[in-house]
Amino acid sequence: MTNEGLRTVPKQVDHQQRRRHIGEAVLRLIAVRGLEAASLRNVAAEAGVSMGTVQHYFTSKQEMLDFAQRYNYERATVRIPQLIAAVPEPRSTRALLRALLTDLLGLDGESREGARLGAAMLGYAVIDPQAAATARTAYDGVTGFLAAQLRAAQAEGGLPAHLDPDHAARHLYAVVEGLRWPTLIGAYTSDQALAVLDDHLSTLFG
Amino acid sequence: MTNEGLRTVPKQVDHQQRRRHIGEAVLRLIAVRGLEAASLRNVAAEAGVSMGTVQHYFTSKQEMLDFAQRYNYERATVRIPQLIAAVPEPRSTRALLRALLTDLLGLDGESREGARLGAAMLGYAVIDPQAAATARTAYDGVTGFLAAQLRAAQAEGGLPAHLDPDHAARHLYAVVEGLRWPTLIGAYTSDQALAVLDDHLSTLFG
Repeated sequence: MTNEGLRTVPKQVDHQQRRRHIGEAVLRLIAVRGLEAASLRNVAAEAGVSMGTVQHYFTSKQEMLDFAQRYNYERATVRIPQLIAAVPEPRSTRALLRALLTDLLGLDGESREGARLGAAMLGYAVIDPQAAATARTAYDGVTGFLAAQLRAAQAEGGLPAHLDPDHAARHLYAVVEGLRWPTLIGAYTSDQALAVLDDHLSTLFG
Repeated sequence: MTNEGLRTVPKQVDHQQRRRHIGEAVLRLIAVRGLEAASLRNVAAEAGVSMGTVQHYFTSKQEMLDFAQRYNYERATVRIPQLIAAVPEPRSTRALLRALLTDLLGLDGESREGARLGAAMLGYAVIDPQAAATARTAYDGVTGFLAAQLRAAQAEGGLPAHLDPDHAARHLYAVVEGLRWPTLIGAYTSDQALAVLDDHLSTLFG
């Protein structure tokens, strides 16, 4: 559990690898033991590096949470284009949205780890104004993206003209988020969650 | 900030009043400062009573969280029948569900405090098996109640016969929960959340 091996690779690669290594350790720690356990000391232990190395990336709990969210977002920006590329052509808006929203449901792997981070951050956002501001930006980002997709589909005649894309985006994302948490704790099965998502998309796209 | 005054009232009333007093203090503390701040010491300070008095109701953090959830549930069992009684006759299933679900959105007052407790408990349920089991029971209770209401409406011809009440209940409650958290942190306005809920009920009841 040392980082001796990393010292032999070039500096830039070393930095990126180490950042990823620490990012994975933070997300794992929060996912398994929660925010309370996410101290600089525990992250250093989980990553098998010194406190000094960790402090190269963040020096307070607030900075660590920002780092965890950014790193989780970065992972998603690698993962989601791959999911979309795997959707068979021709790729309908509905099929693209299903691929994205299934990932946001957090049913497995990195996506589930991201959902566990999200659950922890939600409790934190309620009591911390800065975390709430970050969360609002994230909601705006997701619902804005969904609304743009729905607006484009509407322009192509794939959605009813009377539909308000912003309102429909909030409705759609509410379904996804409202399925994510109960599925995460085992109240709903993955199949039950996917059945509701598919049903919602069917109602939306007609 | 002492409980001297309570000593002059009869024992049974004293007990109920004190339990309520401590329940309010725990919910207020969690709602404003989060689970991390909810120690026996802080609850005693918030309620203005001794640690010994608090320990009459719970002796560990786990017991305190159980107490907070039970007390929050008890408040809802007083509040929700009042909301339902306020629905004008004749009370349609849709109008009853709207009254209940609007409360569950957590837009203000006790209902909002309950939502803040829920957000804190969600992060906790992800890392604690006992809290997850409690949360699953709560999901089963809410979706079971909604499904029973939808099944009854269906029997009376108020809902399409092809609808699966359990599936529709999960869909409906997903919308409510998926609106609750972003509204709680100010990403959506109360009006935006209610518009989505009303739209969903319109689609469901036709």
